Amino acid sequence: MPPPRVLAFDAGGTKLLGGVVGADGEIERRVLRGIAGLTRDALLETICEAAEKLREGAPHVLAAGFGIPSTIDRRSGRSVQSVHLPFDDFAFGAEIEDRLGLPVAWDNDANAALFGELRLGAARGASEVVMLTVGTGIGGALAFGGRIYRGSSGAAGELGHIPVDSDGPPCQGGCPGRGCLEALASGAAIGREGATVASAAPDSALGRAVADGREASGVLVTELALEGDPGAMSVLELAGERLGAGLAGIANALDPEVIIVGGGAMRAGELLLGPARRVLAERALRPASERVRVTAAELGEVAGMVGAGLAAHELARGGERAEAWR
Amino acid sequence: MPPPRVLAFDAGGTKLLGGVVGADGEIERRVLRGIAGLTRDALLETICEAAEKLREGAPHVLAAGFGIPSTIDRRSGRSVQSVHLPFDDFAFGAEIEDRLGLPVAWDNDANAALFGELRLGAARGASEVVMLTVGTGIGGALAFGGRIYRGSSGAAGELGHIPVDSDGPPCQGGCPGRGCLEALASGAAIGREGATVASAAPDSALGRAVADGREASGVLVTELALEGDPGAMSVLELAGERLGAGLAGIANALDPEVIIVGGGAMRAGELLLGPARRVLAERALRPASERVRVTAAELGEVAGMVGAGLAAHELARGGERAEAWR
Repeated sequence: MPPPRVLAFDAGGTKLLGGVVGADGEIERRVLRGIAGLTRDALLETICEAAEKLREGAPHVLAAGFGIPSTIDRRSGRSVQSVHLPFDDFAFGAEIEDRLGLPVAWDNDANAALFGELRLGAARGASEVVMLTVGTGIGGALAFGGRIYRGSSGAAGELGHIPVDSDGPPCQGGCPGRGCLEALASGAAIGREGATVASAAPDSALGRAVADGREASGVLVTELALEGDPGAMSVLELAGERLGAGLAGIANALDPEVIIVGGGAMRAGELLLGPARRVLAERALRPASERVRVTAAELGEVAGMVGAGLAAHELARGGERAEAWR
Repeated sequence: MPPPRVLAFDAGGTKLLGGVVGADGEIERRVLRGIAGLTRDALLETICEAAEKLREGAPHVLAAGFGIPSTIDRRSGRSVQSVHLPFDDFAFGAEIEDRLGLPVAWDNDANAALFGELRLGAARGASEVVMLTVGTGIGGALAFGGRIYRGSSGAAGELGHIPVDSDGPPCQGGCPGRGCLEALASGAAIGREGATVASAAPDSALGRAVADGREASGVLVTELALEGDPGAMSVLELAGERLGAGLAGIANALDPEVIIVGGGAMRAGELLLGPARRVLAERALRPASERVRVTAAELGEVAGMVGAGLAAHELARGGERAEAWR
């Protein structure tokens, strides 16, 4: 009998990462597809085509796992509010099970990433865990007692949408909030702040890069900050401090043992995490402020895919925890 | 054999409410003691004297329960940061057990109040619950799966210390944060805002009351708002909107089925809750925004004492849930 394997996918706003994943999280094959701007039908067809491709080399998969950037209502089995993908109010799990002919474990992408980090990454052995994924937006996930916490309808963990400046600018994507953490400390916010600094200091490395036609994105700001440009570094410091203010509130509310920060913005590493840790320590109440450890995610860009794969294995094995993913 | 009874106490910043509580939460005797400004020793003696008084009429109590306004570190068995009482870094439970000669269940006062509401009040039958107690400060408590959630060290639930304006004014009491919900929507914040409105509109009812020498407190603002004074009503509306912004973040993060608001500020009723509900509905993500119910606490000022009493009964009965209170 071949070793148990599943298909696993992490769907982001612009790309779909897929793979064949073994029971211990090992990745055997991978596919990557661009999905920006696709209609729902085209996106579903892309998923099926990618699954087909993966199954050519792994014909005996037991299940499939998905992480998608959406709030989910477990009571109705629907993805509800998907900021970057056409999955609003959609019976995602049932449709995918139908199309792939496999049992499907699916969850919010940050929940999938945290599940990966709990099993194989920065949260191994931890019980009370908070994760933030800082990319274009900010996702989040919670684990209490070592298990993913989903709230009363399945949508818990949207930590990017805690307001840290409730009279601040409107949030992005489909969020109706103002001054959310995502509006002030995400990759998109870092890019906006970078554009402001580039205008104010045209002779800085950041100013020259923008004058040369590069987009003032979070990626550019991070690249120049890592090269030592003071303007770019100050942008990351401000974003890190805002992140830290949010983390102080999260520490006060939830008293976690570890807060994991992942996502593309973590390319900035300590330039972002250092100020966040400092503000958290300055502003949170004891004992939570002394207890909590703030650390970078370990699984990098495959966290969501690996977590989705491990969830699919749990579903395939059955038992008490299996149905939570369905 | 007499029916099982316990002693129960809710210690606030200015008063200690105590009682003899039966297994179903019925209150048989009560005492009230002023405790503002007492030293730790004097406060402990007041507690012992009140306990003595209660035991005169109920000699066969099984245990005692306490709710105290403090963060708690369960790992060390100490109250850590007590904003209004001299219990900082203090082995509260052990000391009280020693003095009373009874097993003692003790917890943060908001946790005790939520336990009361879960068993007998607004959260009966609910599983995923958030509670805020809005008084001079803002306390909070969480229940997941129908049980009080205490985080990794015992300090979870400090929902008053989530920043909703992270560049805002310093928080009050011992909190090192800025722009916390407590700094902007507590009874104290309502009083400060009331003083501003009284200065700006000396001919309003609020302005005249302050000119007559009354303190521009949350109590005064609420009293005049309930009589229809537009200035006082606008103060409560602003506080309610800020509360709603905080609740939107809490709904996004935790997706509770019910958010209970209690504490002295709830004398304002819908004048505070109405704007909070409106802003929550406007700003939170679906499905959490549509799922959550925001409702007033039902047990009023005895919630904490009754909850502490029910916890003491749980401790006295023993079993799986008992030790969580110790």
